Amino acid sequence: MPTRFDLVAFDADDTLWHNETHFQGTQQRFRQLLADYHPPEWIDQRLDATELRNLTHFGYGVKGFVLSMIETAVELTEGRVVAAQIQQIIDWGREMLSAPVEPLPGVREAVAKVAESHRIAVITKGDLLDQEAKLARSGLGNLFSAFEVVSEKDAKTYAAVMRRLGVEPSRFVMVGNSVKSDVLPVLEAGGSAVHVPYHLSWSLDRAPAGAADFATLGSLAELPGWLSG
Amino acid sequence: MPTRFDLVAFDADDTLWHNETHFQGTQQRFRQLLADYHPPEWIDQRLDATELRNLTHFGYGVKGFVLSMIETAVELTEGRVVAAQIQQIIDWGREMLSAPVEPLPGVREAVAKVAESHRIAVITKGDLLDQEAKLARSGLGNLFSAFEVVSEKDAKTYAAVMRRLGVEPSRFVMVGNSVKSDVLPVLEAGGSAVHVPYHLSWSLDRAPAGAADFATLGSLAELPGWLSG
Repeated sequence: MPTRFDLVAFDADDTLWHNETHFQGTQQRFRQLLADYHPPEWIDQRLDATELRNLTHFGYGVKGFVLSMIETAVELTEGRVVAAQIQQIIDWGREMLSAPVEPLPGVREAVAKVAESHRIAVITKGDLLDQEAKLARSGLGNLFSAFEVVSEKDAKTYAAVMRRLGVEPSRFVMVGNSVKSDVLPVLEAGGSAVHVPYHLSWSLDRAPAGAADFATLGSLAELPGWLSG
Repeated sequence: MPTRFDLVAFDADDTLWHNETHFQGTQQRFRQLLADYHPPEWIDQRLDATELRNLTHFGYGVKGFVLSMIETAVELTEGRVVAAQIQQIIDWGREMLSAPVEPLPGVREAVAKVAESHRIAVITKGDLLDQEAKLARSGLGNLFSAFEVVSEKDAKTYAAVMRRLGVEPSRFVMVGNSVKSDVLPVLEAGGSAVHVPYHLSWSLDRAPAGAADFATLGSLAELPGWLSG
C-alpha cells in the first residue's frame, strides 16, 4: 500500500514516555523545601521566571532545571538556604537523570506498527546525554533509524533536520504533545503534524491561540490507523 | 588534484578555539573561594573526583562543571559554604557560557583553505546548546557542512557519524587536540587522525601510553599542507 509519508518523526518527552510528571514531582518537593519562606504559588512563579531567564544559557533539560532551582532557592531565602538543601536539590537532579523511563500506554505497539511501513525518527529537545540515556532505558531505541536532539524546535531547525534526513517536507509528519514545539513550526516548514496531547504541560510550553491545519489524536495508539486512513 | 580524504572533521574545544583556559581560569577562582578551607591541590583533587563521578549523569560541559563545583564546595566546607558563594559559582558558569569565542591563531585561514578542496565538519562533545552557540560566536559556522555534537567520543560513535555523513572510514580524517578522544577511537573505527596538541589538557582527558599511527602537527596552520602533501 502506498504511504502518504516517507518519514514519521516522534517527539520524545511526554509523547513516547512520561517526563513532565518527573519535573512536576521534583517541583513539588522544591515547594516543600521552601515552604517556611513563601507560599507555593509565589515559589512556582519565581522558578518559572528564573527558568525563562536561564533558557538562553542553560537550555532545556534537567541540569538547567537544577541550576534554576538553586538560584531560586538563594533568591527566595535571601541567601539563608543552607548547603545541605543545595545538595538535596542536586541529588533530585541526579535522581531525575537516572529514573526509569516508562513508555506511555500503547506507545511500544503503536511505534512498532508504524515502523513496519515507515522510516521513523525521534526529534527532541533537551540535554543530549540525558535524551540518549532515556532512549536506551526506554527499550524503544532499536526501532528508530534516527535520533535527533536539537537545541530549539523552530521551523528552521525542522527544515535542517528534514534536509539531513533526506525527506521532502510534503512527505514528513511530526507527532508530539506540544502544539508550540511539535506542530506549528513543522507546519511552517511545510510538513504535516499530529498532536497527541499529554495530560500535563510545562508552563513555558503552552500553545499560542489560533487555528492551524493539523490532526489531534487521543493517544498514540490511534496513530497507525490515522496513517493508513 | 585528487584528494586523499572526502571529509575532514575537526574537534572544536581547544582545536578550533580556546576552551580549557576558561575552565582552568574558573577553577582558579574556585580554589580562591575555598582557600580558607583547603590547599589548592586538595581542592583540585576533590573536584576531579566529583567530575569523574558525575560524568555518567551530567556529561561534559559547563553545566555539569558548575554542578560538580557546587557539590565539591558543599563537601569541602562540610556544609558551611553560603548561598552567596553558591550563586557566585553559578554566575561563573553563566559567564563561561557567554564568553567570547576566540579562534586559535591561524585557524580561520587554515579551515577556509581546507574547505576549498574538502567537505568539512565539526565533531565535538559537550552540551548541545553551548556548542552551537560557540560555533555561532566563533564566526566559523558557515564554513562547515555538518556540526555533530556527541555525548561520547568512542569508536562506535565515530562509526555512526561516518555512516550518517556518508563517508567511508578510509576517506575520513579527524583533526583534534586529544589523543584519547580525537585520535585513538578514530583509528579504531578505520579512519585517519591528525593530532594538533593544545598547550593545556584536562586532567580527565590525558592520553593513554602506546604507539599508534597518526600525524602530529604543531598547529592547525600546517593542516592544508599536510592534506596536500
